[in-house]
Amino acid sequence: MERKIVMVMPNLTAELKACIESEAVSLGFVPYFFKTPEDAEETVKDAEILFGNVPGLCAHASGLKWMCTANAGVEPYLKPGVLPTPETVLTNSSGAYGVTIAEHIVMVTLEMMRREAEYREIVKAHTWKRDLKISSIYDSRITMLGTGDIGRKAAVRLRGFGPKCIVGISRSGRRVPEMDQNYTVEALDRILPETDLLIMSLPGTQETMHIMNEARLRKLPETAYLVNVGRGNAIDQAALEQCLRGERLAGAALDVFETEPVPADASIWSCPHLHITPHTAGNMTLTHTVRFIVEQFLTNLQNYAAGRPMNAVVDRQMGY
Amino acid sequence: MERKIVMVMPNLTAELKACIESEAVSLGFVPYFFKTPEDAEETVKDAEILFGNVPGLCAHASGLKWMCTANAGVEPYLKPGVLPTPETVLTNSSGAYGVTIAEHIVMVTLEMMRREAEYREIVKAHTWKRDLKISSIYDSRITMLGTGDIGRKAAVRLRGFGPKCIVGISRSGRRVPEMDQNYTVEALDRILPETDLLIMSLPGTQETMHIMNEARLRKLPETAYLVNVGRGNAIDQAALEQCLRGERLAGAALDVFETEPVPADASIWSCPHLHITPHTAGNMTLTHTVRFIVEQFLTNLQNYAAGRPMNAVVDRQMGY
Repeated sequence: MERKIVMVMPNLTAELKACIESEAVSLGFVPYFFKTPEDAEETVKDAEILFGNVPGLCAHASGLKWMCTANAGVEPYLKPGVLPTPETVLTNSSGAYGVTIAEHIVMVTLEMMRREAEYREIVKAHTWKRDLKISSIYDSRITMLGTGDIGRKAAVRLRGFGPKCIVGISRSGRRVPEMDQNYTVEALDRILPETDLLIMSLPGTQETMHIMNEARLRKLPETAYLVNVGRGNAIDQAALEQCLRGERLAGAALDVFETEPVPADASIWSCPHLHITPHTAGNMTLTHTVRFIVEQFLTNLQNYAAGRPMNAVVDRQMGY
Repeated sequence: MERKIVMVMPNLTAELKACIESEAVSLGFVPYFFKTPEDAEETVKDAEILFGNVPGLCAHASGLKWMCTANAGVEPYLKPGVLPTPETVLTNSSGAYGVTIAEHIVMVTLEMMRREAEYREIVKAHTWKRDLKISSIYDSRITMLGTGDIGRKAAVRLRGFGPKCIVGISRSGRRVPEMDQNYTVEALDRILPETDLLIMSLPGTQETMHIMNEARLRKLPETAYLVNVGRGNAIDQAALEQCLRGERLAGAALDVFETEPVPADASIWSCPHLHITPHTAGNMTLTHTVRFIVEQFLTNLQNYAAGRPMNAVVDRQMGY
């Protein structure tokens, strides 16, 4: 029987497709490529391996042995009935998005601190005004809430700007060398008042749900900035909006939201001191990102074919 | 006779003013503080030391021994008749602007690469579009045209993003450790075609005038980005505008222009793929910048009072 790999990936270059094809065939598999999940519905039924951002397709593949998502977040795959059997191995593509998301984090941080939104309006009006009070990453106290690949890559980039300190906070509090100090979430309430820039890159789990609630948002200094690139529901979005409208925070940059897409009539669109991006931080149009995802998949395909342990296997209990 | 220091500095905090006052008095000087050059015109006449961004005031001070400008660029002071005598020592505040200008450089680079101008319009329309093709500092070839304080501080920050290489080009080609390689300007024509990101932080001298002329602009790849934070006339601005309108370059970010303020009816305002800021990169509203300038001045005041050599003395022949 044919050992089918079904690949659903719209951003694949011809070069990467050829790479996958030759590697898969040499390992005894037959790859099928699709642009959309709909196109793949028939073929996936007897697939052994499925690759893509396609939680809706998994249940069609009753004999699925390995699901590899091109995303970092895996919540949609953990809902009951999505993966066809308890034995189906789930791997993600964490590690692929650190480069692009870290660049996003630095960009939006500087845009807020240097008041780019206001300067863009000044320039649009062909006027010459240059005395808006700005602030700086230099000498600032940074708290990284989430110390995975994204938090670490962001810390390396922010380090070059000469911050006063970078404090990492994670579930385990494990030592991450890119940070000056590492704490568990228990330290969060103590660290927030000493934070000039809070960067959130947490996975979506029950523990991270509204981790930044109203009380915690109010513990940040009024001069602090917040960036969220992890999951929208890690922040109480209504409370954040209230803080920004009341100038209880200097600014926030959200790439993720409690509801996505953000409804056209949502009040958050017009919230002052808020920089919105439509979930673009982990932009898959970046060549590096797609290449990384494919390379990691091919390494894992070799592992899988040889019966070796795979990389980036998701603990379906932990949720990441 | 009173040894007068005339300080013209609008952004001085009370704390810094008190600092200057006590240090000056302890060294035997009498400081006078003004917000505008007009207010200082009478007092400056018998000043020994003048501090500020006030080329128009120098000629009034016929006995001026030391002019310290709060700027990095010194062109206005080198014109005939501006400094009262050939012996008047001119110092600048180079070193003060590296932090803020380097942050500007990284910000506008990422904004261009990640197409922030377009995403801002998408968000303004409350729409959810996220598939614009972006690029990255990671793995890019960076050329720093100008390897002074600004170029070096920018290189340190850009290094964290994992570029393929950072090549420094300067008049002398002297070895600057923040760069992977250092060349003289003779290498420029060879390096430009291998450049993904060109960052210009040159002083305004006769040699840098239109250093990026039309022929050189056309040597950059069509996918390249250009950032200028040095002097506007280092680029042939009309040729750059033509390149951008013809999509011969991916983008440019100009903070400095051949004429400033840019006239309201100038065609450059509407140039596509151009990010304009109104000479804000070296923003003096940043606390760090003002503090640095004052601290460097006070160190130099101690040197001056003791007859020791001063720092940041400008070579009036070289122009920096």
